[in-house]
Amino acid sequence: MSDRSKIQEHLARYVRATDQRDGAAMSKLFLAGGRVNIFYANGGAPQQLGELAGRDAIAGAVVNMMKPHPSRGWSHHTTHDHIIEIDGHRATIDAQFVVYEVQGAERPPDGWPVGAFGAQGTVIPIESGYYRPVLRRTQDGWLFETQNIFLDLPMAFPEA
Amino acid sequence: MSDRSKIQEHLARYVRATDQRDGAAMSKLFLAGGRVNIFYANGGAPQQLGELAGRDAIAGAVVNMMKPHPSRGWSHHTTHDHIIEIDGHRATIDAQFVVYEVQGAERPPDGWPVGAFGAQGTVIPIESGYYRPVLRRTQDGWLFETQNIFLDLPMAFPEA
Amino acid sequence: MSDRSKIQEHLARYVRATDQRDGAAMSKLFLAGGRVNIFYANGGAPQQLGELAGRDAIAGAVVNMMKPHPSRGWSHHTTHDHIIEIDGHRATIDAQFVVYEVQGAERPPDGWPVGAFGAQGTVIPIESGYYRPVLRRTQDGWLFETQNIFLDLPMAFPEA
Repeated sequence: MSDRSKIQEHLARYVRATDQRDGAAMSKLFLAGGRVNIFYANGGAPQQLGELAGRDAIAGAVVNMMKPHPSRGWSHHTTHDHIIEIDGHRATIDAQFVVYEVQGAERPPDGWPVGAFGAQGTVIPIESGYYRPVLRRTQDGWLFETQNIFLDLPMAFPEA
Repeated sequence: MSDRSKIQEHLARYVRATDQRDGAAMSKLFLAGGRVNIFYANGGAPQQLGELAGRDAIAGAVVNMMKPHPSRGWSHHTTHDHIIEIDGHRATIDAQFVVYEVQGAERPPDGWPVGAFGAQGTVIPIESGYYRPVLRRTQDGWLFETQNIFLDLPMAFPEA
Repeated sequence: MSDRSKIQEHLARYVRATDQRDGAAMSKLFLAGGRVNIFYANGGAPQQLGELAGRDAIAGAVVNMMKPHPSRGWSHHTTHDHIIEIDGHRATIDAQFVVYEVQGAERPPDGWPVGAFGAQGTVIPIESGYYRPVLRRTQDGWLFETQNIFLDLPMAFPEA
């Protein structure tokens, strides 16, 4: 398996951990001192929204800061058109991402309406941007040193 | 061409056959005794919705069970973030998928309305989930032994 | 880096140049005499909508014929399920594409509404189809000889 494929699959495991809200799986993808930087792209003048430093903070954010899936709900963080550069023990990815929010309909007690056919519910893209992580080659394989997330859309946070 | 690339392209040919409603092309992607299992993911307690056994059943389902494209209509079954594991002559893929339904607008007899610009019609994500096929290496290359489809959304079927 | 990966990344750079409306970056991805052919797929009877011949025409089209991004707006041209064939110094890609239009909401002067949480704005798929480019291996790496774009949806053009 080529380094390029390993690096690309590392990002695939990152989006799986995100969609599964699995903080333990997520933290293992990072160096012990790994970081996540979140930016609002802001038309080319990126504005930092948050930073997570270290595996515990990263695991905690997946569990505590992301909205849990509602009943019959799921998400898909999908990545596209990867540009991967490898320089010795360091690598970078530039990938587009699109996030979908999925909500299954509830089957009425007396069955789906007459004429209903196929998938019942909604799949809605709610977010997009670029992932631009930096990875390091370690004895445990390639790991994220820093995950840089550039969000296309401005974010609203709940008041503390 | 690496085994990994061959396996990934096999899935690309699967989604092409699906969107083209091409039963003959689809059946050739499977072992003679290949199977398709369709599950509703159901929040982690998968519920089997259907099973197709053998090339004829698989080809028939593409032609007879999938809704034909309407006039100016098309679909895109797209796959993302592949995790591929190869163990000798056996391989597995874990891929996210999103399905789009595309419907072109009909050009009015006296032309598009004033101010209309660009693509006329809709591209709507209608379904998503995971493909988790098992492949076997054969004299004819990698083929699906089993295609396992996990749908995020519950399905309504027409009454028999 | 394998030829297959180089060719796939070439398409990734193409969609980056498109979304950045960067005519100079785009023109460098083509042979000096490269071409872009745009077709409406038209249910299997492709209808040619336009042709661009040569780097200057291609660069000009990116800058002058594509709608500039509005304030807080962006686009993502994403590609999926690549089938790549290499024959000596010539290669072809068959890829699905989906285009998203992204529009960030404007933050009200007194802050986001009570209860607002997460990304504020819309991510809407507006176009889809297939990219089927032909590439040539040159001293400067793989370059597009012809980019063939097959659009699913009919197009409205402004009156001249």
